[in-house]
Amino acid sequence: MDWSKDLKPAASANGAEILAQERQRSQINVDRLSHHLFGSAYLERQQRILRILQREKIFSKANQANLSRPDRYFLGLARGKRMRQLMDEHTWNDDDLLMAEYLIDDLQPYHLHMSLFAAAMREQCSEEQRRYWQPKIESWEIIGAYAQTELGHGSNVRGIELEARWDPSTKEFVLHSPTLTASKWWNGTLGRTATHSVVVAQLMLSERNAQGVMEERSVGPRPFIVQVRDKATHQPLDGIIVGDIGPKYGYAPMDNAYMLFCNHRIPHSALLSRYASLDPDTGIYTRPKSSSSVYGQLTRGRSVIVMNARLVIARAVTVAVRYLAIRRQFRDQDSTDPASVETPVLDYSTVQIRILPLLATAFALHYSGSAMRELYERTRSSSTLDGDNAQLAELHSTSAGLKSLATELAANSVETCRRAMGGHGFGGGTGLIQLNNDYLSKPTVEGDNWMITQQVARYLIKKVKERAEAPGADAVSRTEQNLQNFWNDRHTQPCFAVLENDADIVKAFNWRASCMAVKAYEAREVQKRPWNSLLVDLHKLSKAYSQAMLVATFFDTLQAGVGLDQSTSTVLRSLFHLFSFHTIDTEAREFQSSGAVGTEVLDQLPAKVLMLMEEIRPHAVRLVDSFALPDYLLDR
Amino acid sequence: MDWSKDLKPAASANGAEILAQERQRSQINVDRLSHHLFGSAYLERQQRILRILQREKIFSKANQANLSRPDRYFLGLARGKRMRQLMDEHTWNDDDLLMAEYLIDDLQPYHLHMSLFAAAMREQCSEEQRRYWQPKIESWEIIGAYAQTELGHGSNVRGIELEARWDPSTKEFVLHSPTLTASKWWNGTLGRTATHSVVVAQLMLSERNAQGVMEERSVGPRPFIVQVRDKATHQPLDGIIVGDIGPKYGYAPMDNAYMLFCNHRIPHSALLSRYASLDPDTGIYTRPKSSSSVYGQLTRGRSVIVMNARLVIARAVTVAVRYLAIRRQFRDQDSTDPASVETPVLDYSTVQIRILPLLATAFALHYSGSAMRELYERTRSSSTLDGDNAQLAELHSTSAGLKSLATELAANSVETCRRAMGGHGFGGGTGLIQLNNDYLSKPTVEGDNWMITQQVARYLIKKVKERAEAPGADAVSRTEQNLQNFWNDRHTQPCFAVLENDADIVKAFNWRASCMAVKAYEAREVQKRPWNSLLVDLHKLSKAYSQAMLVATFFDTLQAGVGLDQSTSTVLRSLFHLFSFHTIDTEAREFQSSGAVGTEVLDQLPAKVLMLMEEIRPHAVRLVDSFALPDYLLDR
Repeated sequence: MDWSKDLKPAASANGAEILAQERQRSQINVDRLSHHLFGSAYLERQQRILRILQREKIFSKANQANLSRPDRYFLGLARGKRMRQLMDEHTWNDDDLLMAEYLIDDLQPYHLHMSLFAAAMREQCSEEQRRYWQPKIESWEIIGAYAQTELGHGSNVRGIELEARWDPSTKEFVLHSPTLTASKWWNGTLGRTATHSVVVAQLMLSERNAQGVMEERSVGPRPFIVQVRDKATHQPLDGIIVGDIGPKYGYAPMDNAYMLFCNHRIPHSALLSRYASLDPDTGIYTRPKSSSSVYGQLTRGRSVIVMNARLVIARAVTVAVRYLAIRRQFRDQDSTDPASVETPVLDYSTVQIRILPLLATAFALHYSGSAMRELYERTRSSSTLDGDNAQLAELHSTSAGLKSLATELAANSVETCRRAMGGHGFGGGTGLIQLNNDYLSKPTVEGDNWMITQQVARYLIKKVKERAEAPGADAVSRTEQNLQNFWNDRHTQPCFAVLENDADIVKAFNWRASCMAVKAYEAREVQKRPWNSLLVDLHKLSKAYSQAMLVATFFDTLQAGVGLDQSTSTVLRSLFHLFSFHTIDTEAREFQSSGAVGTEVLDQLPAKVLMLMEEIRPHAVRLVDSFALPDYLLDR
Repeated sequence: MDWSKDLKPAASANGAEILAQERQRSQINVDRLSHHLFGSAYLERQQRILRILQREKIFSKANQANLSRPDRYFLGLARGKRMRQLMDEHTWNDDDLLMAEYLIDDLQPYHLHMSLFAAAMREQCSEEQRRYWQPKIESWEIIGAYAQTELGHGSNVRGIELEARWDPSTKEFVLHSPTLTASKWWNGTLGRTATHSVVVAQLMLSERNAQGVMEERSVGPRPFIVQVRDKATHQPLDGIIVGDIGPKYGYAPMDNAYMLFCNHRIPHSALLSRYASLDPDTGIYTRPKSSSSVYGQLTRGRSVIVMNARLVIARAVTVAVRYLAIRRQFRDQDSTDPASVETPVLDYSTVQIRILPLLATAFALHYSGSAMRELYERTRSSSTLDGDNAQLAELHSTSAGLKSLATELAANSVETCRRAMGGHGFGGGTGLIQLNNDYLSKPTVEGDNWMITQQVARYLIKKVKERAEAPGADAVSRTEQNLQNFWNDRHTQPCFAVLENDADIVKAFNWRASCMAVKAYEAREVQKRPWNSLLVDLHKLSKAYSQAMLVATFFDTLQAGVGLDQSTSTVLRSLFHLFSFHTIDTEAREFQSSGAVGTEVLDQLPAKVLMLMEEIRPHAVRLVDSFALPDYLLDR
């Protein structure tokens, strides 16, 4: 009956054949490049976990996009439970579990229990608290969430309104939401799932003021462990209102929460007291000391964000490159052969200009993310490497810029690839819809992309100030060296030979960033201009500095030798050029006005970019193959 | 029991009070500005239809985002039916119906019946066919769709594969899909709802070739009216496979279709034969003549796209401005007053730079869209205005650029506003999620944004060629005049005084576009470079030309006088400046290298943009109020 089963695609549109031809056009050794990018442990893990997950029907993505939001939540619970069972059956370690979550590619309601809640408890519990809670957390006897953000305050944590008032008479804390805006908001896993939560509240203490009068004030936001729901009934405890905030952009299976407290009492032991504690008998409060270990943790966290961003770009580009290589539309306008076939869409320069620089970006982010991770590993295993520690301290101050740039590039990449695929890009067949909806939170969370760039700028202004006040001082870190180079020659226009010399590319990026740093310093420290009036320039400065980091790391990696065959290395070099020249072309005015690159060179860049794209084009399919993304993940 | 009901927002976060204060800061007469923008007929219609819809529970958006895709479809059917009933009850005309669809803000499965199907039948039917079909269409006795796009071909309509073969023995056409890629694809209303469809297929005729041998060939794609489903059972007719293509980016209630034919026979009368016909007895085919009325239709259609784009931006900006005016986060870093309150987020320059140029863009698009519509109306009511007709002909060739630019700006605006709102931007409370998901098809449909810009470039290259070949010829249209101005002075660098003189702003935009047109001409016509190697530059040319159109129309409107009070006119002038300077700043390299604007002026632009945003900031809430978007539409 179903005669459509015998139909074949038009002769010119046989996907498998076309991809086979594409792969024949390139000499890249995909397997070797994959190992270079990911290492064998990662690739082995991906295969091993994939085999297990593919057998489990509950993780099938086939009908997911048709479900209602409540059904997505229930499916999420079932998936979470099954994943936990698999973890026990196969004795998965943390990396295995992360890989499983990545391949399942659907946030589970238990996610915050495993991630933020567990991490916060590990970090904030006293030894005694940890002994009590850790087994319950590991066995999922309790399910925890992390409640910090409120309706009224997200970025500004110090502004949160929930109060935890110490009552010395009963030796309890009283949690109270004085306003509607004090409502906890956005807290994942808490809307329906969690039994417990870390709750961040202003710790309110009464102390005698200078006049000897008792005065209540906050000593700052502190974390408490709070039971939220009854273990038997799963109903909220008295004095707690908690629920799901409803639909949001992505994360359909996640129960993001609102939560309010009305004079809800929690015991003294609820205050997580590794860093700060309150003596229950004397009421004396011991303030937290800042911990230096946070440097490494933050750098590690930011490297994960960058590596994740490069995988998101890799995924969008993989889907786009394969489809656009197969898809043909219109005969070449200049062709005089009436029998000529239609042009593969990936051959159009207007399509290449959107896809191939992104392909190069995935590599650029990869090398920077790797370098950050390696630096973190080195400093963790040894505390004697002073150079590394100086670099880590600097990275701590500047990695906010990389977070901002990487998540911005990745979030935009999905939509760029989607649009480049034309009509079919709008369809569910791309596998990109949920990826986009879920990933679009990333430019906001873990530091809003436009806000946190101030950190980078503040650090750079400080570094320029040091230089201006002591021009002869030793330049230790790379940034100091770059700033010194610029400072010494700042009245020249070096116009680096970026087209001839790769080291000059790095110099040009550093020069432009240094120039912008000095301008920011002058505006703030010399002209004393208001901080708010500088924010747009500071954001641009952070971007310029982060782009320079990406280019420098990419260049360093290529110079150190990537241990790959000649033809693959040549293509990697082309990707480095494409990323660099496309970025310079996009930001041409900044390179020009800083004197980093001259007008004649800038005028040549668009043609150079076209040439590079033509060079890379035959390797596009093999390059995305090397990202080793399983079809299972691509949702095919 | 629910003690949370009595809670108030924190004192500094009372939305209604803050908005009232915001409105007190500005003298703009919102009502007058609304009437200036929309006219009283539109505003009256919006109020009238709104009152009717608000009473209808079925149009409530409250739970929409929680539903499954099948339930969204069923809800869509019910809504469509109710809308049709309301149309009959209130004797709505076409404009009323469009307003109702706009306010309901959820595409209904019947949408294509009312729009594309009805329009195609109106346009393509012979008189006899129209008499037969029109009553059935108007009464919804049949529900129609429009099936042109195929799995293998969208943009390139001439490449579609479905065949309609004339069988002279039975005087029927035989519809047949020879391949899988010949499957109709994306066709709205057809997946589950429609009984009929206009089906576009290659009309295959057998004709004697030069050697006298009968040869079958396509005379091109032609439209047929085809019954798809049985009226009683709603099952597809024999020889037709049709169904829903499944989830896609937005348009949850819409049943986009795939459809295949296996030697399915349709009568001779199925060929829509207003423009082309086949004599059933002789088999002689009469080819279509190109119709000049299509100029006006296309211009009208493009003006609708531009006006729709400006409403999408207006909506995103309205939500963002109101929220960001209320939302406060962080105290001013430079404040020494410890009691200072947190800063409204809209006061941060990094937020303003994302929102306020978009606010200006909504006005710029508005005036261009209006001008297009008025031109269309003028030429329709009178055919004697030669100047208007010349302008219309030019607009026909260049409006593709406006479609591309306007939908790109609008599609990006929603995401820009969403991100500027930080965490809450990710939430469903913005009312922007569905708007974004639905609107994201617009950069692709009705001419892919990167593809159709070739039309503009082709037209401009032709115009430059005429100029180069006859430099003394009369320059009739505006474009010809601009090109002539540039051509005559092309070896100079005029460096227009854009900061001093508004007319110079328009000149600078025209100069830059003309310069790029001449470069494109030289590359193509003089250096004979391949078309594909120029596509990126041609896209930039179209963008530059379209931006010049927006700026020129905005300027003309202000010069002609907008009939508003002085303070409102002053703010409109600031919006014109903001749109112009922000665009010049963003595209600075092109203005610089064409010699349209000098480096010193370009260097002043960022500060000038900051100043303009400070000027506009107090008026932001009243400006978005003037868009007159009902809370009902904003999904509050």
